[in-house]
Amino acid sequence: MDETRSVEKINQEFYDAIQQLSISRMERLWLHEEWVKCIHPGWELIQGWTAIRDSWESIFRNTQSMQIAVTQIAAHVEGDIGIVACTENISSYFTEGMRSGLALATNLYLRRENRWFMVLHHASPVPLDESVLLNETVQ
Amino acid sequence: MDETRSVEKINQEFYDAIQQLSISRMERLWLHEEWVKCIHPGWELIQGWTAIRDSWESIFRNTQSMQIAVTQIAAHVEGDIGIVACTENISSYFTEGMRSGLALATNLYLRRENRWFMVLHHASPVPLDESVLLNETVQ
Repeated sequence: MDETRSVEKINQEFYDAIQQLSISRMERLWLHEEWVKCIHPGWELIQGWTAIRDSWESIFRNTQSMQIAVTQIAAHVEGDIGIVACTENISSYFTEGMRSGLALATNLYLRRENRWFMVLHHASPVPLDESVLLNETVQ
Repeated sequence: MDETRSVEKINQEFYDAIQQLSISRMERLWLHEEWVKCIHPGWELIQGWTAIRDSWESIFRNTQSMQIAVTQIAAHVEGDIGIVACTENISSYFTEGMRSGLALATNLYLRRENRWFMVLHHASPVPLDESVLLNETVQ
């Protein structure tokens, strides 16, 4: 399997872990170090595996089910770093109803001893109109 | 100068280039390859240096001046990759007025022949309230 394919594979495993609401799969995917970073759509920056783990636990606890169709996947390997950009087509189901939306993600994977580990996830909402760009306040 | 400091330095040079609305500085900062990626706040993914260059030209052409105070900088070096997360406190001035806002950015730099080059910029608006999370539509 070529390098780019192997990064696309771990990227899909990441989205499988979310859809399965599986903390144990997340646990295996992420590098357990203090500098790893995660930005959920609309959240503040979270740093370090412990805090990132807490955030996924919170998301999974508050979700009945989640479907993410991942499209427009662009993967690239540079040395021991795998860089993926993709579009997340998200449908989340809660007791009160469902939410759907689009997010743009950049995901970073680091190769250590021939295994890929997630080290960064940055997902941001794709705005539907100009009003959410930069929370702009025109004066 | 230690590695992390050298990445913080190129990260500041990136924001200096924006504030100076300088395409030639951007030109020197970015790696000129097809896989490099840029997501401006609220924009779609842009890939490849040529398209990224066009996007900065368009932003600079439509802006009179821009100030970005960069705070909460977290930089880490892993092999030849420098990973920076930071908060952008942006004020943009146009003929019609000004806009200000906060964005969260992750910036990626690649070391080639002892020089850092920018290879990824992902900036996303920090929402002020829940209504912009994921452009949610509750059904």
